[in-house]
Amino acid sequence: MQLDSPYGREYLQNRIICEFPLARHIGIVVESAEDSGVVLCAPLALNANYKGTAFGGSLFCVAVLTGWAWVTHYLAVRQLIADAVIQESTILYLAPVQGALRASLTAPSVERIEKFGKMLQRAGRGRIRLHVDIHYGPAVATQFDGVFAATIR
Amino acid sequence: MQLDSPYGREYLQNRIICEFPLARHIGIVVESAEDSGVVLCAPLALNANYKGTAFGGSLFCVAVLTGWAWVTHYLAVRQLIADAVIQESTILYLAPVQGALRASLTAPSVERIEKFGKMLQRAGRGRIRLHVDIHYGPAVATQFDGVFAATIR
Repeated sequence: MQLDSPYGREYLQNRIICEFPLARHIGIVVESAEDSGVVLCAPLALNANYKGTAFGGSLFCVAVLTGWAWVTHYLAVRQLIADAVIQESTILYLAPVQGALRASLTAPSVERIEKFGKMLQRAGRGRIRLHVDIHYGPAVATQFDGVFAATIR
Repeated sequence: MQLDSPYGREYLQNRIICEFPLARHIGIVVESAEDSGVVLCAPLALNANYKGTAFGGSLFCVAVLTGWAWVTHYLAVRQLIADAVIQESTILYLAPVQGALRASLTAPSVERIEKFGKMLQRAGRGRIRLHVDIHYGPAVATQFDGVFAATIR
């Protein structure tokens, strides 16, 4: 059923392009979006630095939008009208990315998701920590950890 | 003497625009650049999200380029031909930014700078931790901490 969600790839692609003008310049493409995880991609050409590798700022943007996309998908599927924002994050650049910037997020544990859902129900506001990896070849090139907050309107 | 440095505002503005294509879309302007600190600015219009506040990815980009600018200025003044890259960073979003994204970096302690210089001299490679604040009104809205590495070519 999740694969047929009206809040999947196309929904998130439209929202990202409409709501984050910079995403157009970065060339963000939502490759997949399900409860179990989200994958976003951006071409190197729009995000390279002078050395022909991905700019650290672009890698951050792709990663933070991947986290935002997962939270936004979670909220939309549950018909929750809420804004998601990043509160804090840590990013590690382990190796240069010399091709497409492909960020993948695997959903956190069921316990963490349930806690987030309960916070939203009880307080109208919840926080959840999400992890995003950017691979280049077989290795993880960039690791992103971010805390996202959602507030029901 | 520092104010007359040939590696100040204009030098860094040119390098950022040439070396980071995304910086043009963000509208990065180097306001000042000296050994004692660097200030970069970007207009809200190019960096707003759907709520009319600065996108977290843009805030990160302005902050990381501010750190890069300080290291690049330090290297250029000392005639060191070296590349500076971000290795890891933490960013805290404390309050929304509803105007220009203005990032300021105050040079770290003399001890930390001297250690960085010695590492470059001895090993041809050095690391330095830099702190960047983005103010909105009288308050610090975003705090960025990043470790930058420079490698002499």
